[in-house]
Amino acid sequence: MKKNNSFQEIGQQLMQAETVLIYPHVNMDGDALGSAAALCKALRKWGKTCYILLEDNIARNIQFLDKGYCTWDKDLVADVDVSVCLDCGDLSRFQQRKDKFLEGKVTICLDHHRTTEPFCQFNYVDPDAAATGLLVFQLLKTMGAEPDAEIADAIFAAITTDTGDFQYSNTTKECHEVMTELFDWGVNVSAVSQEIYNRVRLERILLHGKALDRMEVLCDGMVAMTVVTQKMLEETGAGMDETEGLVEQLRSIDGVEIAILVKEAEPEKLKASLRAKSWGNVADIAEKLGGGGHIKAAGCTINMGLEDGLALLRQEVEQVLKEECK
Amino acid sequence: MKKNNSFQEIGQQLMQAETVLIYPHVNMDGDALGSAAALCKALRKWGKTCYILLEDNIARNIQFLDKGYCTWDKDLVADVDVSVCLDCGDLSRFQQRKDKFLEGKVTICLDHHRTTEPFCQFNYVDPDAAATGLLVFQLLKTMGAEPDAEIADAIFAAITTDTGDFQYSNTTKECHEVMTELFDWGVNVSAVSQEIYNRVRLERILLHGKALDRMEVLCDGMVAMTVVTQKMLEETGAGMDETEGLVEQLRSIDGVEIAILVKEAEPEKLKASLRAKSWGNVADIAEKLGGGGHIKAAGCTINMGLEDGLALLRQEVEQVLKEECK
Repeated sequence: MKKNNSFQEIGQQLMQAETVLIYPHVNMDGDALGSAAALCKALRKWGKTCYILLEDNIARNIQFLDKGYCTWDKDLVADVDVSVCLDCGDLSRFQQRKDKFLEGKVTICLDHHRTTEPFCQFNYVDPDAAATGLLVFQLLKTMGAEPDAEIADAIFAAITTDTGDFQYSNTTKECHEVMTELFDWGVNVSAVSQEIYNRVRLERILLHGKALDRMEVLCDGMVAMTVVTQKMLEETGAGMDETEGLVEQLRSIDGVEIAILVKEAEPEKLKASLRAKSWGNVADIAEKLGGGGHIKAAGCTINMGLEDGLALLRQEVEQVLKEECK
Repeated sequence: MKKNNSFQEIGQQLMQAETVLIYPHVNMDGDALGSAAALCKALRKWGKTCYILLEDNIARNIQFLDKGYCTWDKDLVADVDVSVCLDCGDLSRFQQRKDKFLEGKVTICLDHHRTTEPFCQFNYVDPDAAATGLLVFQLLKTMGAEPDAEIADAIFAAITTDTGDFQYSNTTKECHEVMTELFDWGVNVSAVSQEIYNRVRLERILLHGKALDRMEVLCDGMVAMTVVTQKMLEETGAGMDETEGLVEQLRSIDGVEIAILVKEAEPEKLKASLRAKSWGNVADIAEKLGGGGHIKAAGCTINMGLEDGLALLRQEVEQVLKEECK
């Protein structure tokens, strides 16, 4: 595997740039957008022309991170000195922006996914980092960034969402060490947390109720699976982004090791989110179906109708768990 | 207000003792039992005869903290050198054990509630501490406790439950500083977290569904209130302890500032749990109804039937919010 560059080298490239575009992955989570917002704010303070270039919408609960940083206009910055992608394992994670990304005179990747092969000119990939936000924070400190409460909030958002609020097994001592520094920077954990978790729409709660009603339990209770259909969205008025948290709720059931949420994105296009609790490996299942991710959190797209897709998932998960399921 | 004793003084009393009984409050939460388990383990390692004396059942999700420490037998230790109460604001928090408590030759109180007046011979009350577990950890370090993974897990359980997984506004830099130390002690955050949050029974999820169905929204959406009746428990097979998390779910709704969960403990006895999101003060409401607690988390008992109790709560909350409700 290609060796990582140092934060010094990467920081130097950024400091020399006049224009920087930042690329979080599609279907942004708190880590992708939090990392991007923190880096964008810091680079603007150093006088750079800097934007976060997007190709899809920002989920409601992380929109607060965008304080005028995000753009969907590829032509806003014509001459890009540095392209930085964050939390992205490869170019397919920003498929509709990759041509623009490659126009950057310098390309940089900061990521923490275990499957990432360095694909930029400058790379820092650390699979042991709980969040890409931690890498951005180390980079900013190396670059001499001054304490900034807004950056602290964005880094906190990145860490807390990717570690399941410091509960997942990827949570490290470093997460808490960085948190003590973020307190010195002026982080407001409850304000951020309220944005992320306490702006739930009633419609979302209704949707979760319907999805829980439809839950099925497989493999002697080790697997819980449910679906969110387009019809459910119509009936409740909720959006598909409001399924967040549902798969974690399935996983939280006693005895459940693997939780699967199947979202009917289109009539013949299903998106499955898979989560494992302790010993399960959902990356294996997702990879077999053409997807990928982490051992305990993975996903895949299945180009099938609902019933066929569910049957395929049942079959795959039972095969992977066959020893445990007997 | 009576001055706090030092951890040195308190530690000395404990070190001189041969027998110690520890008293968490009734309706134990993770902080009460986590603090107690950590202290009990440490004192036993120092050769003390030590138990946690209880008067009620341990909620399912924190039972893992009791590794042979808990007893309901007041006569198990006849001659008690030191009685320690943890996370208790006054004697009424362990009403049925208070006579036994006062039999201790020395009484000690460690607590973090803002309303606590020191009522023991030795007291350490710090309303700025996010959890009593933090005080126990400082005490144990002062006493020279060696790193111990089981103690670390118990202290983590205390901190994470009382800070809402490091998201509430009571979360301090100290919480994260202690967490970095707990990592050195061998804390297993995901194992503890799975015990606390990922052993949810299906029955509980069904109960939450029913309670959400019955939710009412008051004061232009600023208040969300719901009930759990004995009938709901019968219908779902869930226990009353499985209402945990429900009031937080109500509070998480966008625009809701105050969330109220009313539990029908008996036909004419309601227990209300109140939570505020940002500017609300639910301690005021609870205190008016004979209860108490923190600004953002309080409770009270109402000796009325369901409909009368709900009407009273509606009236009180509307009065407290009357300016905001117009």
